[in-house]
Amino acid sequence: MSHSNKIEIVAADQNAVNGGTSSDRQNGENRNIELAAVYVSDAQYNRNICFSTSPQGIRLYKFYIHSCMRIIILFFIFVDLALAIFEEPAIFPFPLWLTLLDMIIYGILTEMHLYCVRWSRVLRPLLLVNITESRQLRRAFRSIRNALPHVLYVFFLFMFSVLMFSLMALKLFGKRGLVTSEGRAYFTDYLDIVFDLYVLVTTANSPDVMMPAYNYGIMFSVFFIIYIVINTYIFMSVFLAVVYNNYKKHLKEEVRQLVRAKRRNMVQAFRLLQEPRGDEPVVMRETWNRLVHAVQPGISAVHRELLWNVSDEHNRGYIGRPAFIQLADLLNIQVITLKSRIHPLQIYLPGIYNSAASRCTRCVVQHRFFVYVYDLIILVNAVFIGLDEENPFISYSEWVFLGLYLLEILLKLYAFEPRAFYARHQFWNWFDTIIIICALIATILNSALKSSSNYNSREILDIVFILRVLRLIRVVDSIKRFRAIINTLIKIGPTILTFGQLIIVIYYIFAMVGMELFKGTIQFFENGALKPGHEFCGNPLLNGSAFAKNNYCRNNFNNVISSFILLFELTVVNQWHVLASGFTTVTSNAARIYFVVFHIVVVIIIINIFVAFVLEAFFVEYNVSTSGLQTSLEKKIKELELGIDQDQLEGNLIENLETNDNDLGPSGEHKGKPSVMFTIASKRYRTIEALLQRMFEADLSPEDDADDEDHDNSLSPELSFPNPAFNTT
Amino acid sequence: MSHSNKIEIVAADQNAVNGGTSSDRQNGENRNIELAAVYVSDAQYNRNICFSTSPQGIRLYKFYIHSCMRIIILFFIFVDLALAIFEEPAIFPFPLWLTLLDMIIYGILTEMHLYCVRWSRVLRPLLLVNITESRQLRRAFRSIRNALPHVLYVFFLFMFSVLMFSLMALKLFGKRGLVTSEGRAYFTDYLDIVFDLYVLVTTANSPDVMMPAYNYGIMFSVFFIIYIVINTYIFMSVFLAVVYNNYKKHLKEEVRQLVRAKRRNMVQAFRLLQEPRGDEPVVMRETWNRLVHAVQPGISAVHRELLWNVSDEHNRGYIGRPAFIQLADLLNIQVITLKSRIHPLQIYLPGIYNSAASRCTRCVVQHRFFVYVYDLIILVNAVFIGLDEENPFISYSEWVFLGLYLLEILLKLYAFEPRAFYARHQFWNWFDTIIIICALIATILNSALKSSSNYNSREILDIVFILRVLRLIRVVDSIKRFRAIINTLIKIGPTILTFGQLIIVIYYIFAMVGMELFKGTIQFFENGALKPGHEFCGNPLLNGSAFAKNNYCRNNFNNVISSFILLFELTVVNQWHVLASGFTTVTSNAARIYFVVFHIVVVIIIINIFVAFVLEAFFVEYNVSTSGLQTSLEKKIKELELGIDQDQLEGNLIENLETNDNDLGPSGEHKGKPSVMFTIASKRYRTIEALLQRMFEADLSPEDDADDEDHDNSLSPELSFPNPAFNTT
Repeated sequence: MSHSNKIEIVAADQNAVNGGTSSDRQNGENRNIELAAVYVSDAQYNRNICFSTSPQGIRLYKFYIHSCMRIIILFFIFVDLALAIFEEPAIFPFPLWLTLLDMIIYGILTEMHLYCVRWSRVLRPLLLVNITESRQLRRAFRSIRNALPHVLYVFFLFMFSVLMFSLMALKLFGKRGLVTSEGRAYFTDYLDIVFDLYVLVTTANSPDVMMPAYNYGIMFSVFFIIYIVINTYIFMSVFLAVVYNNYKKHLKEEVRQLVRAKRRNMVQAFRLLQEPRGDEPVVMRETWNRLVHAVQPGISAVHRELLWNVSDEHNRGYIGRPAFIQLADLLNIQVITLKSRIHPLQIYLPGIYNSAASRCTRCVVQHRFFVYVYDLIILVNAVFIGLDEENPFISYSEWVFLGLYLLEILLKLYAFEPRAFYARHQFWNWFDTIIIICALIATILNSALKSSSNYNSREILDIVFILRVLRLIRVVDSIKRFRAIINTLIKIGPTILTFGQLIIVIYYIFAMVGMELFKGTIQFFENGALKPGHEFCGNPLLNGSAFAKNNYCRNNFNNVISSFILLFELTVVNQWHVLASGFTTVTSNAARIYFVVFHIVVVIIIINIFVAFVLEAFFVEYNVSTSGLQTSLEKKIKELELGIDQDQLEGNLIENLETNDNDLGPSGEHKGKPSVMFTIASKRYRTIEALLQRMFEADLSPEDDADDEDHDNSLSPELSFPNPAFNTT
Repeated sequence: MSHSNKIEIVAADQNAVNGGTSSDRQNGENRNIELAAVYVSDAQYNRNICFSTSPQGIRLYKFYIHSCMRIIILFFIFVDLALAIFEEPAIFPFPLWLTLLDMIIYGILTEMHLYCVRWSRVLRPLLLVNITESRQLRRAFRSIRNALPHVLYVFFLFMFSVLMFSLMALKLFGKRGLVTSEGRAYFTDYLDIVFDLYVLVTTANSPDVMMPAYNYGIMFSVFFIIYIVINTYIFMSVFLAVVYNNYKKHLKEEVRQLVRAKRRNMVQAFRLLQEPRGDEPVVMRETWNRLVHAVQPGISAVHRELLWNVSDEHNRGYIGRPAFIQLADLLNIQVITLKSRIHPLQIYLPGIYNSAASRCTRCVVQHRFFVYVYDLIILVNAVFIGLDEENPFISYSEWVFLGLYLLEILLKLYAFEPRAFYARHQFWNWFDTIIIICALIATILNSALKSSSNYNSREILDIVFILRVLRLIRVVDSIKRFRAIINTLIKIGPTILTFGQLIIVIYYIFAMVGMELFKGTIQFFENGALKPGHEFCGNPLLNGSAFAKNNYCRNNFNNVISSFILLFELTVVNQWHVLASGFTTVTSNAARIYFVVFHIVVVIIIINIFVAFVLEAFFVEYNVSTSGLQTSLEKKIKELELGIDQDQLEGNLIENLETNDNDLGPSGEHKGKPSVMFTIASKRYRTIEALLQRMFEADLSPEDDADDEDHDNSLSPELSFPNPAFNTT
């Protein structure tokens, strides 16, 4: 079916070339371009959704994938998750009538014998996982699920080891009548020993758990040393290795499928636009231009031209299938188009701007020495911040520093073209300006409040302090090696955010369960010293426990924010056994299961995957191996003498501007040649998929790329989706 | 020089072939073989020492590399390191006269104005690093040194981040008048804050350090969460990534050099033995046989034959240079020669052994069911161990279990050939037998002591308990997946031991410094409750401190063993700030430097390298990619139908034996063909270098292997060592 369809389109195209101009044909052509553009866009962003190819279907699909819709969906998911703030146990309780309504609905449902245990809250975050936009999240979950069996075997062996050591500990220490520093009997109950030794694996109770035995006899420390070496160092490394290895393996398989799906989309687009020429079908330049414009309306004409030059190496005016398929990847390479602009002051006040004094100023500002002077100022500022701000001298110096920083920005704006200074990739300029302006506003507000009334707002002062310290971070940018490390961290940022989502989903589930199990068992009283029972967190069972002694009362499950903070503390692991023992004391020993399961899921699995991912992403960044595609683009840029030095760009010493001029003018004119320059933001990835693809580039076998015609017959059903509407045109 | 030398030798060989039989020539030939054998042995074990090639020199060199010498050197190093046990602060103080002698020497040296501060103790472990046998250790140190600059940049950035956060903490919390749970002022001194936040990176004081701020206002927890995410999770992952990446890079370079040196040695050996044939020099089979015998006197004739068959693929009777060079690697592949033997009982008591009852017994023992029954017995035994052993019923059951285990071993010895059962690779059989025999002896000894006198030795009972539990470990062997994991761990064992050495060197240095700084400041009293001052570790400064409250008095630097245990606790990290604060209280705040430096060196660098190495070794084991050399050997074994199923071997269900028959008989006779079988212990590495080489196999460029004639001119000086004595022969 898809085949006959193709021939029809080709015929139509042929007619168009032969001079046919009926609006019907024109229409069909437009639709082809529109459909092809959707395919290319799907390939570019690795979407893999089946949609109807009727004109209406395309319109609906474009609406569905529009960013507005995404934002609306995310907003509703946020509202759904935020319900936890208002539900019992709530931070802001609902008004009575809403609670009543809720109760009535619940009552009616119960009366009607509908099964309605309220476990839906626990499943709520799964909504976040199941929307189109969280492909990465789903991929992470899938990879975890696939890695699980291998991890389980290691886990069983690890648990076997813990059980064996516990048995040994019971026999060695159980009968000696030792006591812990809290006066409890030491290692007499098997299940308690298992828990204590499990905690020891996390190192949270080291060396306390060892001390009674060590004090009794020095040789008994050997038992604990062997235990820690085997279970903490070796087994935990093996966990990391197994999680890493399996996660990577499955991710690689997923990326391979992604590459295949992308190719399939591009082949679909090619079929719609191809025209026969000689032996093989090709796409003409004119069609290609329209396609690129349809895919990315904001692309500049020069950028488009550059991409065409890369695709059509021999300047033949048409490209074959392999060159066409590159398009999705080419569009994903971020090319920064630069145009040299004249400083506005030079236009409006040329006399002053070109004077000797002005030139000298600009020279000074652009000099390296200027940077060193300001680095020194920052260091002096750091010392002043450290001193007591109630000293009036120190307090006034703050105004001096603020003035100096403002002066720096103004001088730079004078020396450099402002639009170039605030170009999108000039991270540190933006950072500086925002911080300084915020600090200025906050400092003025603070002193205004201070002088007008006697009211001294701590909140504003806190913000002022934070901003003052943040200002100092700028010094990092002056040191090249530091900049490199930070750039790498910024690059792997999106990936880390994916893990952020993953962790929020898991935290949410555990928070919901924890709130059901433990809400209200432990109380925290603000300004507690005045209230009765504050010394045992409002629960007499905790009287004298380590939990109460350590002032941990605020670590409770009484609302969703406290729960999240508590879960974070459990993730950090230290003292988690004290936190767990607090909750087991007020409920039962079975509560340990909750904490151990949390530890296994979050620390052993998720954090290990996180570490594995950071490692892998770092290695990719470190061992720079630019992909062939990027190299060819870079080569072309150099060939056309349109290149710009990356160092120059980073040193922000050139006057440049990122433009988005949208002229669809005639091709082949390099009218602004010296004023238009390109650079490849070679290591920034538009999509996480691009990073993933790059990570596994070396491992992807060539046949994934050289996927040939034969495979087209085995297209997945969703891609050979029947298209009756289109057939009838 | 080396060239002329070669020609001379070749001529001598030529004469020998042509029927020259003078004892002089014979002698020269023997010497050539001897020297070549040394080169091959150097290549095999990756030694790279320059030695004189005179007959005397060779003899001395062979003596030097002999294992006896190694043992002697290791013994003296051990004695040297063990001095720490007797030196002040000592476990066993020296007798007075020795101390006096020491003082007199010291006094004389001082009188003679010789510079003699006694810092040599700290440098003592460097001796261990500098002997020939610790190549791996030196390699590890070199790789660390090379990775250091990169790690330092990340470390500076990390410290900058800690300093900035500390400044922010000072401004945010310093003026609020908060107190910690111990009643001290919270976050008022900058240096204290830096230390507290450094400790927070190690998570050792989480969540305690956060609680005062968190109790004051819930939003302040955000400060700590951001801090932990950035500094603990991200920076520590980056540390691992940077250490991993750089360590691996440098190690790869080292391995490349190793491969080159090995090749050079083999080329040297080839030159000594080559004879011209056609275009290229070759080595004849006869010479090769003598060489292999000289290199590895214990090799069996069949094994040697197998190696020749692999080298001489076309059965020409001689091999060229490339095939000859393989020899070092071929010798490193562990081939297990198996011979089926007849059970001794069958020889001496054939009637009984072949009777129906006997056959049935053997059948039962070899059945899977037999294994299951004993797994069940082990599980029941585990429950019994857990129960109270003072119950007479339980106490008697121990004898039953001992009897059952003994019966199992005897039955297995009856069913399987004893020498095959105790073959070198049958780890679990050895393990079982040793454990059972020890348990039997200890149990008998224990009950003898118990009944004869009223004295009940706790030490022997402890050993009995440990052996009883160890017996249970055997159950792991029955589960295939567990066996695989354990085998992997055993395989990477030697590498882990290298790190053990590395850690001992570092511990020793820190222990010596720690003993100088802190000896005697903290006291531990055995049975302390009776002595005054026990509640503050004999130091009034510690009265009421967390150190004393936690019963940490035994964690001190008063002798070398305590120091090592304390350093291990510091490596585990948890509560290290409490330990450190104990020592800062009794000395000065500057003592913190010692503990922070220890943390940086051991935890951030050494442990990360350890994790990196375990990961890398695990990946190699997981993603099995047998090297080409092994595959060709395996192919040959299969071709000759001498192979044996690895599973069969592991299941120890065949009657096999490892032999070392040393017959240098005529070649080409497969007289014992059906009774001699081979298997490759394909994943066991004779040397750590072999593991390393395998780890980086995929990354080593082929030119390292295809290193050709051209390179021979650039031989390193030590290899073109002048050889006057040899020239005169």
